[in-house]
Amino acid sequence: MATQFDPPSGTRDFLAADLEQREQAFGVVRSVFTSYGFEPLQTPAFERLDVLLGKYGDDGDKLIFKILRRGEHEASGEADLALRYDMTVPLARVAAAYGSQLPSPYKRYTIGPVWRADRPGKGRFREFVQCDLDTLGSTSVLADAEALCAQHDALAALGLPDFTIQLNSRRVLAGLLEAFGVPEELGPGVLITLDKLDKLRPDAVIAELAGRGLAEGTAGELVTAMTAPDAIERIRAALKPSEEGSAGLDEVDGVLSLVSLQVPAGRVAFTPRLVRGLSYYTGPIWEVVAPGGAGSIGSGGRYDHLIAQLGGPDTPATGSSLGVERILSLLPDNDAAERGRLDVAVTVMGDELAAASFDFAATARTAGLRASTYLGSSGKLGRQLRWASDQGARWCLIYGRTEADAGTVTVRDLRSGEQEPVPIGDLGDYLSARAAAELGR
Amino acid sequence: MATQFDPPSGTRDFLAADLEQREQAFGVVRSVFTSYGFEPLQTPAFERLDVLLGKYGDDGDKLIFKILRRGEHEASGEADLALRYDMTVPLARVAAAYGSQLPSPYKRYTIGPVWRADRPGKGRFREFVQCDLDTLGSTSVLADAEALCAQHDALAALGLPDFTIQLNSRRVLAGLLEAFGVPEELGPGVLITLDKLDKLRPDAVIAELAGRGLAEGTAGELVTAMTAPDAIERIRAALKPSEEGSAGLDEVDGVLSLVSLQVPAGRVAFTPRLVRGLSYYTGPIWEVVAPGGAGSIGSGGRYDHLIAQLGGPDTPATGSSLGVERILSLLPDNDAAERGRLDVAVTVMGDELAAASFDFAATARTAGLRASTYLGSSGKLGRQLRWASDQGARWCLIYGRTEADAGTVTVRDLRSGEQEPVPIGDLGDYLSARAAAELGR
Repeated sequence: MATQFDPPSGTRDFLAADLEQREQAFGVVRSVFTSYGFEPLQTPAFERLDVLLGKYGDDGDKLIFKILRRGEHEASGEADLALRYDMTVPLARVAAAYGSQLPSPYKRYTIGPVWRADRPGKGRFREFVQCDLDTLGSTSVLADAEALCAQHDALAALGLPDFTIQLNSRRVLAGLLEAFGVPEELGPGVLITLDKLDKLRPDAVIAELAGRGLAEGTAGELVTAMTAPDAIERIRAALKPSEEGSAGLDEVDGVLSLVSLQVPAGRVAFTPRLVRGLSYYTGPIWEVVAPGGAGSIGSGGRYDHLIAQLGGPDTPATGSSLGVERILSLLPDNDAAERGRLDVAVTVMGDELAAASFDFAATARTAGLRASTYLGSSGKLGRQLRWASDQGARWCLIYGRTEADAGTVTVRDLRSGEQEPVPIGDLGDYLSARAAAELGR
Repeated sequence: MATQFDPPSGTRDFLAADLEQREQAFGVVRSVFTSYGFEPLQTPAFERLDVLLGKYGDDGDKLIFKILRRGEHEASGEADLALRYDMTVPLARVAAAYGSQLPSPYKRYTIGPVWRADRPGKGRFREFVQCDLDTLGSTSVLADAEALCAQHDALAALGLPDFTIQLNSRRVLAGLLEAFGVPEELGPGVLITLDKLDKLRPDAVIAELAGRGLAEGTAGELVTAMTAPDAIERIRAALKPSEEGSAGLDEVDGVLSLVSLQVPAGRVAFTPRLVRGLSYYTGPIWEVVAPGGAGSIGSGGRYDHLIAQLGGPDTPATGSSLGVERILSLLPDNDAAERGRLDVAVTVMGDELAAASFDFAATARTAGLRASTYLGSSGKLGRQLRWASDQGARWCLIYGRTEADAGTVTVRDLRSGEQEPVPIGDLGDYLSARAAAELGR
């Protein structure tokens, strides 16, 4: 049940264990993207409203979080800023703002939150992270293949056990419409329906195509060609005579041949029905699907005119985006949460011994360990040992009157229960040695 | 000059070199905070408006960025959400929401942006990062000392060359007012004026105190005691008879004795004039100052009732916050920018050799190196070598017709200009060995 203390609808608080798992995953993605020579970019959380409005269609515009003007204008109820809705419009703005100061081609990645006033639901958030990479300024199919491979490698490095990358080209789709004689005005609708072949039965798709006004014969031929056991061969044959279709096949084959040496066989599959909803794609397009993943967990493609449409320079572009929230939900729980908050917990047995205990914690930190003194008010050893164990500490340092008189610290191994006195002057070396031997640090 | 492509006023785009320096600094802070057993927390960028309003005073309320209601309510011009203004109110909400699920004490750090509709200016931004750590649930002076030491260690680890931590206690200030017979109703104003002793001449401060209605004799005594060469001794002597003053001195001395073993001598200084503007502090307070730093670059203190006032449970609390934007501007430029985007740049000499070049880049990545093929359209070696050099690459792999016929790749060291042929099958091992020998990786 939602209480007044919950975070706003569609957003989440990340406490330590979840946050550490997320950060670790982002670190993996960052490291893969960097290895391909993509460099990081970070833009502000908000943009001027006019930079965002009109870029995502009417439906998108409704989902933009708008920020009220400040100061005397506040009462007007007008907005002048808006939260980032995706990473592509800010990229277009950056390309326009920095122009020739950017390397050419400009290969950048960005990992950060975007905000959409969507209806929250299972796996659907109003604040969620996108991991995007894009190359501006290259028309080469190498850039497309690189964007696909970097995305593939990131997913593999995250440990996603099983996934497929469906590959197509917008030009294959244009060629298909041409080859099967689909009237131009029906084209976009026909493609949207064809894309449902992964969910609907062929006859349902034929019916929907007919409902869109496509001649039933044409609809049947199209669907039969795309669902036959030898569908890929049939589609290839049908595309050959079409100039667009042929060019699209070349794009698909170009990407397939480049990635074939780096990606396990069968992982990237030519998928002629794949459309990708966004109309701005101009060349190769792809989508990553995984068993159990609700829909696509990643996508990408070439969008050669979008940057100019978004207000940037007219530059060819290609890129990919990971649906990292969905991926995180598919990953096996890692053991980040298993690690305690502390390696070394230090008891505080009375005010007059507190300074020494405080110093032992510093000694442990110098030895590379996470360490803290007890901060509660109980002087009882049992209570403090319970705290040490709750913190997941491996060792507890006990320093009471007896130890003070002997000039030692009692080091208790909280796993074995064994303990031994260590001369105060030797504590740092002792802890370093045990950390190296037992924690591998 | 601002153009339509600049980020919104008071915000910044961070391109690779700046961003890398920032991330590196945040990593250093994170690592120090973690070593003290603080755990991370991340809350959403926005909160419900009612969670934030009324928590920062009237002036603060005006600086809150408010987000318009969505959907049919948008036309009303009403806001229901607001961007995070600091990290403390979200912490109070989290403490209320998760209660006993949180460890006790709850030691958390957070590093992330906050947003304030302040007038932008030099070193003043509308989007800036705060690095906060706080301990909820401990009344121990050990927790105060820990917050101060963790902050100190973070600054030292960042490489800040020279800074001082001014330490005081709210109870010292209360004791001062009592000891010098300042009428209760004048107390807050008198403290604000006394805090100007670091900027104004003593006689100007006396005049301002008199202007506030303080008897000129009292004003003179107070200022003389606080500016005399033996000011600290005088203030200590004056505080002793006061119960509050005495308790305040104990707090200050408690922190000083705990930190003395871990912090270089003189770095933490009892500073009786230090007030800290925020009225919610209840115990020890401190502020970090550095030469060249415009004002405070960090602060902290105990605030035992604030969490309850902010809507959380009634829990004692202490913590510190780094003004990390100011600190970044004080740090010497690091050499992150010196590192190239790539370690290995691979030429592409014609379409039929592209797949092999693409694969060599993958081989280099497998060897732990940053690598990419040329993505431009020029087939000229000179042009491609210039690109490789612009990328800061250490090695360029050249693979043309000659190499293909010989089954080798030419590896050119872009620093020395030397090059040698390497059999294709040996490339991975060869690059690994050179990376280890020459880059230490």
